[in-house]
Amino acid sequence: MSKLYLVGTGPGSSDYLTKAAIDAVESVDVLVGSQRALDLFPGFVGDTLVLRARNMDEMMKKSISLVDEGKDVAILSTGDPGFSGVLKPILNLRDDLDIEVIPGISSLQLAAARLQLPWDQANLLTLHGKGNSQVILDYLDNGKPTIVLPDFRVEKLAQFLLENGIHLERKVAVCERLSYPDERLFKGTLKEIAGKEFSYLCVMVIY
Amino acid sequence: MSKLYLVGTGPGSSDYLTKAAIDAVESVDVLVGSQRALDLFPGFVGDTLVLRARNMDEMMKKSISLVDEGKDVAILSTGDPGFSGVLKPILNLRDDLDIEVIPGISSLQLAAARLQLPWDQANLLTLHGKGNSQVILDYLDNGKPTIVLPDFRVEKLAQFLLENGIHLERKVAVCERLSYPDERLFKGTLKEIAGKEFSYLCVMVIY
Repeated sequence: MSKLYLVGTGPGSSDYLTKAAIDAVESVDVLVGSQRALDLFPGFVGDTLVLRARNMDEMMKKSISLVDEGKDVAILSTGDPGFSGVLKPILNLRDDLDIEVIPGISSLQLAAARLQLPWDQANLLTLHGKGNSQVILDYLDNGKPTIVLPDFRVEKLAQFLLENGIHLERKVAVCERLSYPDERLFKGTLKEIAGKEFSYLCVMVIY
Repeated sequence: MSKLYLVGTGPGSSDYLTKAAIDAVESVDVLVGSQRALDLFPGFVGDTLVLRARNMDEMMKKSISLVDEGKDVAILSTGDPGFSGVLKPILNLRDDLDIEVIPGISSLQLAAARLQLPWDQANLLTLHGKGNSQVILDYLDNGKPTIVLPDFRVEKLAQFLLENGIHLERKVAVCERLSYPDERLFKGTLKEIAGKEFSYLCVMVIY
């Protein structure tokens, strides 16, 4: 029976690929992923399908039908497929496939590592695809730092928090383009973040 | 200035090592870790110090003094140093060192992968070193599955939960010796788990 691998590729650069991820990719007929994830496997010799924000659903369905046709397929998921990754959308489409999930380092983990923040005592939150950021407000006063994957630009999230009564001197950090050569770390206040511009690849920590 | 690396080695087998972890280990003079972590780096040519449950504190202090003497040191941390790993104890001892944390795949992540459980909607909990398991009772009724690193044998934790009023038919899973060739997955009820015997390397999921 053919198989669908959901492969975590880590926060971005090849430094965080695991052998399990590389072995899974080398075993398949078709590799599906964003261009930046596909670029991690320049030696891959099978067919590739490029995931884009706008063709996500179509490519998931295409991947599933390739498995039905007898191909082994790997879908690359930045970070960990189980944290704001492809696992949930795939299970929503089909729960009867032979699936193997290969975990990966989430950008939340690399953010926690860079900030030397033990994340067993943090709130972990994804706002990806949530539509609005209201849910974050439930976490910010429980005494733990909150590590969040924003749904849009991090300065917009900071503005949203200010508009919703979070104190402008609240300590925050932004980890930008984690694992890439131009990675940057910014520590400051909520007010400072709201007034800056950041890349779209950011993790935010609210202390 | 010499440096202390806290290196996540993943759940156990070398399949989940990252290039970042391997590069950090290859760069240091002294490697510190449990025997099963040290065994992941058979080609390491520097000095090694073996961590055991009973010499943990002593070896942490020894590692720090080696850094003070000018050596680059890596402490291996099973899973992720930031989740129930060496980051917190090291920061409690000294917060002025040049530290680099290399994140790793936590066994919680591999458990979630094996069970195809999106962990962005789960409670993540470590009971390591907590002394008692009382804290878990706060999580079990919030509508999310709970992925837990037990502090002792998983059947004892199941017995504790039964004694504290959790229903004997509550659905649970135990992932034993994750990533090793003899890895096993058990799905059943709390009552069934309480009556079995498991290895000490387990992750438990309470649905």
